[in-house]
Amino acid sequence: MNNNLKMSRVIPVLLTGLCLLLFRPTCCSCSNILVVPVDGSHWINMEIILQELHARGHNITVMHSATSWYIPNNSTWFTSINVQMLDDEDKDFYNRMLLNYLECRKSSTFMRTFCQNNLVGSMLDVGHKFLSESVAGILDDQAFMKLLQDTKFDLMLTDPCLPVGLLLGSYLKLPMVYNVRWMDTGDVHFTIAPSPLSYIPFPGSELSDQMDFLERTKNTLHYLQNLAQQHFIINPYYSDLLQRHFPPGSDLMSLQLAADMWLVRADFIFEFPRPTMPNVVYIGGFQCKEARPLPVELEEFMQSSGNHGVVVMSLGTLVSALSRETMEAIAAAFARLPQKVLWKFVGEKPSSLGNNTLLVKWLPQNDVLGHPKTRAFVAHGGTNGLYEAIYHGVPVVGLPLLFDQFENILRLKVRGAARMVEAGSLTEEGFLEALKDVLETPSYRNNMKRLSQLHQDLPMSPMDTAVFWIEYVIRNKGAAHLQAAGFSLPWYSYFCLDVAVFFTAVTAAVVWALFAVCRNVCCRKSRRKTKAD
Amino acid sequence: MNNNLKMSRVIPVLLTGLCLLLFRPTCCSCSNILVVPVDGSHWINMEIILQELHARGHNITVMHSATSWYIPNNSTWFTSINVQMLDDEDKDFYNRMLLNYLECRKSSTFMRTFCQNNLVGSMLDVGHKFLSESVAGILDDQAFMKLLQDTKFDLMLTDPCLPVGLLLGSYLKLPMVYNVRWMDTGDVHFTIAPSPLSYIPFPGSELSDQMDFLERTKNTLHYLQNLAQQHFIINPYYSDLLQRHFPPGSDLMSLQLAADMWLVRADFIFEFPRPTMPNVVYIGGFQCKEARPLPVELEEFMQSSGNHGVVVMSLGTLVSALSRETMEAIAAAFARLPQKVLWKFVGEKPSSLGNNTLLVKWLPQNDVLGHPKTRAFVAHGGTNGLYEAIYHGVPVVGLPLLFDQFENILRLKVRGAARMVEAGSLTEEGFLEALKDVLETPSYRNNMKRLSQLHQDLPMSPMDTAVFWIEYVIRNKGAAHLQAAGFSLPWYSYFCLDVAVFFTAVTAAVVWALFAVCRNVCCRKSRRKTKAD
Repeated sequence: MNNNLKMSRVIPVLLTGLCLLLFRPTCCSCSNILVVPVDGSHWINMEIILQELHARGHNITVMHSATSWYIPNNSTWFTSINVQMLDDEDKDFYNRMLLNYLECRKSSTFMRTFCQNNLVGSMLDVGHKFLSESVAGILDDQAFMKLLQDTKFDLMLTDPCLPVGLLLGSYLKLPMVYNVRWMDTGDVHFTIAPSPLSYIPFPGSELSDQMDFLERTKNTLHYLQNLAQQHFIINPYYSDLLQRHFPPGSDLMSLQLAADMWLVRADFIFEFPRPTMPNVVYIGGFQCKEARPLPVELEEFMQSSGNHGVVVMSLGTLVSALSRETMEAIAAAFARLPQKVLWKFVGEKPSSLGNNTLLVKWLPQNDVLGHPKTRAFVAHGGTNGLYEAIYHGVPVVGLPLLFDQFENILRLKVRGAARMVEAGSLTEEGFLEALKDVLETPSYRNNMKRLSQLHQDLPMSPMDTAVFWIEYVIRNKGAAHLQAAGFSLPWYSYFCLDVAVFFTAVTAAVVWALFAVCRNVCCRKSRRKTKAD
Repeated sequence: MNNNLKMSRVIPVLLTGLCLLLFRPTCCSCSNILVVPVDGSHWINMEIILQELHARGHNITVMHSATSWYIPNNSTWFTSINVQMLDDEDKDFYNRMLLNYLECRKSSTFMRTFCQNNLVGSMLDVGHKFLSESVAGILDDQAFMKLLQDTKFDLMLTDPCLPVGLLLGSYLKLPMVYNVRWMDTGDVHFTIAPSPLSYIPFPGSELSDQMDFLERTKNTLHYLQNLAQQHFIINPYYSDLLQRHFPPGSDLMSLQLAADMWLVRADFIFEFPRPTMPNVVYIGGFQCKEARPLPVELEEFMQSSGNHGVVVMSLGTLVSALSRETMEAIAAAFARLPQKVLWKFVGEKPSSLGNNTLLVKWLPQNDVLGHPKTRAFVAHGGTNGLYEAIYHGVPVVGLPLLFDQFENILRLKVRGAARMVEAGSLTEEGFLEALKDVLETPSYRNNMKRLSQLHQDLPMSPMDTAVFWIEYVIRNKGAAHLQAAGFSLPWYSYFCLDVAVFFTAVTAAVVWALFAVCRNVCCRKSRRKTKAD
């Protein structure tokens, strides 16, 4: 590890320690929270919660890569500690990934999800190799670890999608809260809750909770593929550092399960209902809020749409590799709509762009989706955008590109609130038909309105829920009383296989004994009969 | 069915209909709730929720037995409809049951729970025979059912411990909310949520969530015993009425699972943490509240205890069959305490009663438990009393007698907040030792204080939670979106057994094919070799 990196870590920790010493006496209920986020769209989520925690007086320290695109090094409201971490600097990576995904989408419905799973698998392979080395470097740096320990954090708040935070938090023995939707094991629930494969689609399988025999078979294969990935690819990267720094027998899974509280970015109006656990709390849509007034120019554009209203399109921040033809087809389809179109667009302006379409480099998405003139949302299917669409009751035309986006759109599709269009085979006519369907068939809007109403019909807002349970773990120094006991059992005991073997053995013994007795009796009888004869 | 009974049903329904017509226009947000409670201590719980709903302007109609001990026929705030229902008139039944239980307790630890399960089984047998006839009578009474339908209830609120309400609610196609802790299938969770037997003790097994191999075996046996009871004893009673009044293929289990919302009278500081479902909400301890001032005489008695404080004893309302010797031993043990004792007692005064002990026929239990002088609670282990003890942080000496009381006390015992004494083998010395242990070892009180603190550390009070979700189901006309899809699957599909058979068959075919190819190749080689030789 180079010295610059070491110093870039140590100085912020020293500053944090000093701040805490200075501020502690005047702030009795606030705590010192160490945060290890995941970069990219995951950070967008995390930042909103952190701002709320900061506003409530907690001291926030964020551990991140110095070269992060998203996480600033010189924030005014949190302290940064720079370590080697995966960041979203490499924009090209996502574009390369998109091209591979588009290739996969050409396969049959059954096979393409396995193809995509392999892509994700190789991404995880590279990522975990890098991360395990990074975490090993951090844990081996005794001076740095001592400083962290001396700073006396009250909580580790982390996104365990990548295991840096959970390893560090476990090592420091900090109460731990996850802000999470995904784990290495797929959907977070597959790690913590019983997940019958008969009605719980495994992430990546693009299945709903209504599966026929073939779909259940596919779901099971996806699960097994993932299990193999976890055991044979990911886990081995961490075995050395676990051996060196953790109690004997520790493994990634048991450390993952030891978290006190799981704030899951889901809501069951979006996710399929399924078993959950007492220390899982749902905060899906916590980032949503009432729309604020738009900038004057944008408001004028929205109003200019008259009764037809506006279609809003955004494909997120990372991907700009859709082909020229696709962009032209989309623009041409938009041009044929009576609606106005607001398109968040980066790149060369399509030649087929209509007069009704306004290209912008950035848009206040939540405020635009909450505008009364907005009629539909053309989205790539990231959860941030979809929850905003749900919150404001705007039906969706999904143009999923990567990862979970296909399944996110699927969830709205099966509820009659979205149409899905394949980016790889998109044509002007096909896209226009989907757009018109969503704009002109009232059921899409009505279904989305119903989801919106249910999503907001909660005893407590998702953000207040998140903050309550974070502070709950801080004030109670953990929440071990909410953790199920099953997690400490070996797998054969967890599934009662030893009991099943015992029952089978006893039954077999009884049957054998009965059989032996019967045979004996029969033989005697037949001997007697023979003698009598 | 006799005509009196019919009229006693019809008149209240007519009155209810009239009331609703009169009051509806002035009360736009209130609803008409049909309630089918279970009598006895279950009613005590239900009544508290109903009073809250009534206070919020909802119209309450309660269906109950005319001869109920607990549920009044002439309530001023709810309308009664009298039907044939199990009630708690037969006090002797519980005393006979207690004698049988005491007999069971003499068996080995392993066997006595099975003995008790058989007692409960025979009780369920008699109960369900009666109830199925009663429900059949109600459903066959077309005039009565028409009146119920015409009254246009907005919700069925029922305790599905006995299935009258759920059958009636399903027939009337009403949105349905359960106020529940038990089902025929045992703990409510065994009906609705995946329940790994490796760490979830089956009700009646008297096991905790930490089980060794033998205990897991016992747990599995208990589960199988219950499954057999359900399938071969209980279900057949209902098959005829289900065939006659419900769609083909309906069974008790599928109707139970169709409820919109399950308000479970549990809290995971008391219950062992375990999987749960999105439409399960926990309201354990909703009946608890701040202590009110005591009547003057009682307050004087409490104050007279000085620094030693007071021990409170109550064994509930139903059982008075403990032997004379047991009562004498308890009284003698109490007499040797420096504390004062407040004993809710019915029967002949024990001769060994000390001057420090005050016998009362009734006591304001919640207020007494919340009194600063109260040091310990000697309880039979009903959940109402135990949640009050938890709420006020009072450690418990448990003297369980029947049903779930053994397991309730066990839950506090494993958390270091209670001692358990066997009523059947109780001696003065043994009881005194347990009392002194709980009174003098600070950990019992500290552990109970910790439970109390956690129990009250919630984002919303359990009562507000209950009311929110009841009104949620009313205003959304159900909560089907929170029901997991797995419940509609046949059992072999739910457990993916068809997929497992398919995989096994494919694997076997592949292995067989490989084996055949290998053998073929080997044979050819050996033939060639033979020829060459």
